Amino acid sequence: MEKTLGIGMIGYSFMGRAHTNAFKKLPYIFYPPPAIPLLRGICGRNQKMVEEAAKRFGYEYATRRWRDLIEDPEIQILDNNGPNNIHAEPCIAALEAGKHTLVEKPLGLNLREAKQMYQVAQKAEKKGIKNMVCFSNRFAPAILLAKRLIKEGQLGEIYHFRADFLQDWLMDPDFPLAWRLRREIAGSGVHGDLNAHSIDMARFLVGEITRVCGWTRTFIKERPVPISASGLSGKGGKERGEVDVDDASLLWLEFENGAMGSLEASRFSMGSKSVWRIEICGSEGAVLFDLTRSNELQFYSGKDPAYARGFRTIIATEEEHPFIKYWWPPGHMLGWEDHHCNAIFHFVECVAKAKEVSPYGATFLDGLRCQEVLEAGLISAERREWVGIDEI
Amino acid sequence: MEKTLGIGMIGYSFMGRAHTNAFKKLPYIFYPPPAIPLLRGICGRNQKMVEEAAKRFGYEYATRRWRDLIEDPEIQILDNNGPNNIHAEPCIAALEAGKHTLVEKPLGLNLREAKQMYQVAQKAEKKGIKNMVCFSNRFAPAILLAKRLIKEGQLGEIYHFRADFLQDWLMDPDFPLAWRLRREIAGSGVHGDLNAHSIDMARFLVGEITRVCGWTRTFIKERPVPISASGLSGKGGKERGEVDVDDASLLWLEFENGAMGSLEASRFSMGSKSVWRIEICGSEGAVLFDLTRSNELQFYSGKDPAYARGFRTIIATEEEHPFIKYWWPPGHMLGWEDHHCNAIFHFVECVAKAKEVSPYGATFLDGLRCQEVLEAGLISAERREWVGIDEI
Amino acid sequence: MEKTLGIGMIGYSFMGRAHTNAFKKLPYIFYPPPAIPLLRGICGRNQKMVEEAAKRFGYEYATRRWRDLIEDPEIQILDNNGPNNIHAEPCIAALEAGKHTLVEKPLGLNLREAKQMYQVAQKAEKKGIKNMVCFSNRFAPAILLAKRLIKEGQLGEIYHFRADFLQDWLMDPDFPLAWRLRREIAGSGVHGDLNAHSIDMARFLVGEITRVCGWTRTFIKERPVPISASGLSGKGGKERGEVDVDDASLLWLEFENGAMGSLEASRFSMGSKSVWRIEICGSEGAVLFDLTRSNELQFYSGKDPAYARGFRTIIATEEEHPFIKYWWPPGHMLGWEDHHCNAIFHFVECVAKAKEVSPYGATFLDGLRCQEVLEAGLISAERREWVGIDEI
Amino acid sequence: MEKTLGIGMIGYSFMGRAHTNAFKKLPYIFYPPPAIPLLRGICGRNQKMVEEAAKRFGYEYATRRWRDLIEDPEIQILDNNGPNNIHAEPCIAALEAGKHTLVEKPLGLNLREAKQMYQVAQKAEKKGIKNMVCFSNRFAPAILLAKRLIKEGQLGEIYHFRADFLQDWLMDPDFPLAWRLRREIAGSGVHGDLNAHSIDMARFLVGEITRVCGWTRTFIKERPVPISASGLSGKGGKERGEVDVDDASLLWLEFENGAMGSLEASRFSMGSKSVWRIEICGSEGAVLFDLTRSNELQFYSGKDPAYARGFRTIIATEEEHPFIKYWWPPGHMLGWEDHHCNAIFHFVECVAKAKEVSPYGATFLDGLRCQEVLEAGLISAERREWVGIDEI
Repeated sequence: MEKTLGIGMIGYSFMGRAHTNAFKKLPYIFYPPPAIPLLRGICGRNQKMVEEAAKRFGYEYATRRWRDLIEDPEIQILDNNGPNNIHAEPCIAALEAGKHTLVEKPLGLNLREAKQMYQVAQKAEKKGIKNMVCFSNRFAPAILLAKRLIKEGQLGEIYHFRADFLQDWLMDPDFPLAWRLRREIAGSGVHGDLNAHSIDMARFLVGEITRVCGWTRTFIKERPVPISASGLSGKGGKERGEVDVDDASLLWLEFENGAMGSLEASRFSMGSKSVWRIEICGSEGAVLFDLTRSNELQFYSGKDPAYARGFRTIIATEEEHPFIKYWWPPGHMLGWEDHHCNAIFHFVECVAKAKEVSPYGATFLDGLRCQEVLEAGLISAERREWVGIDEI
Repeated sequence: MEKTLGIGMIGYSFMGRAHTNAFKKLPYIFYPPPAIPLLRGICGRNQKMVEEAAKRFGYEYATRRWRDLIEDPEIQILDNNGPNNIHAEPCIAALEAGKHTLVEKPLGLNLREAKQMYQVAQKAEKKGIKNMVCFSNRFAPAILLAKRLIKEGQLGEIYHFRADFLQDWLMDPDFPLAWRLRREIAGSGVHGDLNAHSIDMARFLVGEITRVCGWTRTFIKERPVPISASGLSGKGGKERGEVDVDDASLLWLEFENGAMGSLEASRFSMGSKSVWRIEICGSEGAVLFDLTRSNELQFYSGKDPAYARGFRTIIATEEEHPFIKYWWPPGHMLGWEDHHCNAIFHFVECVAKAKEVSPYGATFLDGLRCQEVLEAGLISAERREWVGIDEI
Repeated sequence: MEKTLGIGMIGYSFMGRAHTNAFKKLPYIFYPPPAIPLLRGICGRNQKMVEEAAKRFGYEYATRRWRDLIEDPEIQILDNNGPNNIHAEPCIAALEAGKHTLVEKPLGLNLREAKQMYQVAQKAEKKGIKNMVCFSNRFAPAILLAKRLIKEGQLGEIYHFRADFLQDWLMDPDFPLAWRLRREIAGSGVHGDLNAHSIDMARFLVGEITRVCGWTRTFIKERPVPISASGLSGKGGKERGEVDVDDASLLWLEFENGAMGSLEASRFSMGSKSVWRIEICGSEGAVLFDLTRSNELQFYSGKDPAYARGFRTIIATEEEHPFIKYWWPPGHMLGWEDHHCNAIFHFVECVAKAKEVSPYGATFLDGLRCQEVLEAGLISAERREWVGIDEI
Repeated sequence: MEKTLGIGMIGYSFMGRAHTNAFKKLPYIFYPPPAIPLLRGICGRNQKMVEEAAKRFGYEYATRRWRDLIEDPEIQILDNNGPNNIHAEPCIAALEAGKHTLVEKPLGLNLREAKQMYQVAQKAEKKGIKNMVCFSNRFAPAILLAKRLIKEGQLGEIYHFRADFLQDWLMDPDFPLAWRLRREIAGSGVHGDLNAHSIDMARFLVGEITRVCGWTRTFIKERPVPISASGLSGKGGKERGEVDVDDASLLWLEFENGAMGSLEASRFSMGSKSVWRIEICGSEGAVLFDLTRSNELQFYSGKDPAYARGFRTIIATEEEHPFIKYWWPPGHMLGWEDHHCNAIFHFVECVAKAKEVSPYGATFLDGLRCQEVLEAGLISAERREWVGIDEI
């Protein structure tokens, strides 16, 4: 008989929807599936909306109380897609209750929470309870191809890591003070939202970070207090409140292996809808990636003959590329949601087959390391000086 | 109570899988859904495989006999994804039995079949029975944006339509004689497979075609007879058989409105995984599209000031773009499968709300028109002269 | 003492200016130069303008009578950049007078002239008198790199040649009937102007052409008769005249080696300033080139490992690339005029060192072959049927 | 009678050659010319080489003593393309002798020199003696178009300036210690070489800089001492010496107007031959430029309708674009050397017509401002803290 895994979900709008979609596609896309996810319970703050979400997605029940999911013996996996300020408590409770736990990035609201979450996860791991932070972009086949090329030494010694994550959805001064713009809920602004991705990718592809230098700015200091909000959008009223998070965040990373890292994240980069341009240059080659064209990896090999060297655009949809065998024939592009499908399949497989989440999936340890760098970046930006990761 | 529609599916490998995925995503992506698809029966030639498919995708039963689907009173929609030689009979039977009918392109194995299918569909339509040929690429938001720009007159009078649909999966001489390489099953080679898409797009965006000139070639004349095959791949044995379809097909189109059309389709275009480059140039502007980067539309407006004119890359993932409101926030890319989801949602909505499939969806009439052009192209290629659509 | 070569120039506006620039840059760019060009005489129709040109460019004298150049014993090279209808006579006279002769494409106004010119050139060649048709784009380093890759077999057997040469300078219906729009002067429209380039490139990179199929169209049938004109621009008056040349010309080429060629040339392709997109696909690899980015060659090698294949963008400005050693350090781009510099340096070197103009330069034989294909194309377009090159 | 201007040139290899080329093309490209440059004297360190250069380029005499140029009454313009350590003395002498003075960037070897040079230039300017630092990239038509768009307010308030200037010619550890790698001659490494360009562009397009934060690194600490060297290349012997300049330099800029600037310059960016990617994002629009495709400007306008916004690729070769009227018809691309031609034409015109070098040309004041930022960057990199421009 087929193995099943009961799923408890926190969140139902943007990321909750993307994750639920991944669980629903898993059994027939990743065939034969390592286990069949059963959508048990979904939790959200608004009773009416969470009930509608349960109906829409096929969860057996809806609740406003996340402890219901922890107490449900039919749930084996907790997937926490709530705002950053409700990451820690439910994840800790789930892990202590022996539930495999998946959480959206960043791990916690702050470093203190992240450390605590990691410690609990470490204990649970000894009992075979899995944990993962959903850095889903690791699972783009083109990124996994970059990982392979680097691992094979095709880039040689790494000198440069660059990552610009650029958006422009916040440029309207009348865009309201949504949760992502409030420090008490989000921890920080674009820094924790988008630099988190770049830091995780830096660690995934280049290595550990030892020191950072940060620079942040808030271009619009006051915004309308929202009268309604969901996901990234929402409507503001006449009252205005102070924005206490960053609109743009620049960060330099000193890597253990000597590479220089340069990050830029902005919600004020007009024209960039969701550009995430990553460049890694080494002594033997280089790779470039842009999330806008996420099926493509640019690869330059110094080993090509001198008259025929150039960045080659690899369409990472061939059978030789990671995860592609589960999807469509070569040349048929994956979309953004499919990286989440790959990530969640990986987690379910790790749970079902007792495999290691690392190195492809980001564990709570990776989440903690990322948060250390994020925190050091914020401290550095405040103090206007370099901050060692071991100093915080 | 929510409306439901029972689905009968023919085919389970490549396209059958893509369509089933679309039906499964419909209820929670296109929310609130116009109707809930119920996966009733699935039909295929291999008993073991079709049974496995039923289990994998959640169909209530599997059958090798497509008439079972026609006879099932719980089925309201027949979705025919079988090889081209089993398009006509099941579709006709379904329409006559009062079932809404969706079929993969091309409509029939040949023009004779297509005509017959259209006639039956026309009769059924009078009773409210819907028909659609699944030219799914019409439903890429970037293509619908092109449609809008053209309709608004932003391109002016159209002078040029160009479409190169290029692949390279057939270049290995040891690739076996799969069904797509056999005239009796596929009708033609790359001509009916890929030029069909370009012709439909030409009609969708530019208008009716009056005369054509064709040129085809078969580069590899003999191939191994397959000992197993599924989808686009498969294995060949020692025996070799003649290839009686085209590997490359070039086609010129004379449009009613005076535009010149130029098509090229090839399975021997090394390096092109699934390039479909479409260019439409008019007196006031131009648009370019490439399926490889299907979220993007290039648009040149002659109305921009002279010093600031250029092709602009529109990322068609904004709320203002068709279908995007159902998906993810701006900047989150759709994948290939999602065009199918949009197409099938459109059909289900037309069925549920008694709306017209046209002009966005391709009806059997569009399928027939496309097949006329395809057939005229083959005749022209044989005779090596221009052939009027009204001559065939 | 340094060798010198006296230059006689016909034409002073667009191409005459580009060629004169090439002669002037030769001594210090292509250092040490094979010979020093001395600008002797320049010929044009308008006395005042040709005198000004002589002064501007440093020619010793100006004349309205091209025979003056032929009769000048100090002139060793005639460079004919006049309109197409004055190619034949001066070139023939020059060759018969023992002057090395360079002519802008196309060779003659029509096939008859081209044949005659070739015959005279052939005789002269036996006496060491050189001839070249200035297909300058052959001398873009990226094109010569393509030539090298093809010669080395890195593309294998060629299946497809595609070339779209697209402009939009003629779209304004009030653009006057300049010489390029009059059959008696230009021979044909965009066909002889731009398809000439594509045909020469097809022969240069793929091989001989055996049969063609053509399709032409004139979108704007009447235009203002010009009251002044120079180069591509000019002003029209109130009188209107009939356009008797093509605005767009499509051409299919059957190559001796079995490849399929597909050409499109248009002056009505809105947004394309001077796009010349060339694609060559073979059994082992492919190359793409676009004149808009003429320092770049895209190269796809089927020999790269399956997981790392892709079109690589080679910036052809490295020391290993043809002609680059004469120019700037790697990464410093050449412009359009520099291909002409390379071409003219090649011709001067062939003259000075008694080297063969072929295979890199196009001889009058190449010009003749090109013109045969052009003429066959026009005949085919009129008859609306395939025409063999040996039939004309 | 036509005005002439005698030219005295320091340097004959890379930049000296590019500038001489510009003076030679000026009279017939920029027609009618504001004055005719006469190539009087050229100065270099190696007697044999400078004599050959004089012959090659057509200078009347060669000298190893730059004072000869200052003392020559027939010279009106001194163009100093020597290494950075011989910028100050000759320029100062020339200005004091009443000669219009042009110098390659950076202005001086260090800030002290730059200040002195500026003071002398300021005095000379009062007597009508012109000065310019040859930041030639300002004169790319696409950059001047960006300047226009910004000036017209089409970008609104500027939030972000990004500039990555990336090369890879130094990655071979056996590349010798050429002059650009020695602090006493070059002042700094890639910082003064390439960040100088980015800083000037930042000031040109965005505005004054108030504070900086720098980070530099030397990846290869020892290199062979050269036995011969010219321009960027050369050969090393067995002896090795210490590299005392930076291989990579990152720099953050705080602008007076509140914008954030982020610069990266590297000679260790594998695969980038001479990538200079500039991005400027404001509240209303954005522009992108890459030196690799220097005829193109990407422009995003927030004023386009929401469904049709995107970065448009403007090919800046239309008559409406700066300097283009002197060159070729639309669509015919300029090369790298042509920006120098434009720059030198501008300077000659300013001299001949007593026009202001500013705002399009960079004056010694601009050179000084640039050098202040460069110096602040180096100090910041050493101290690892932000440094105000007014602190140095």
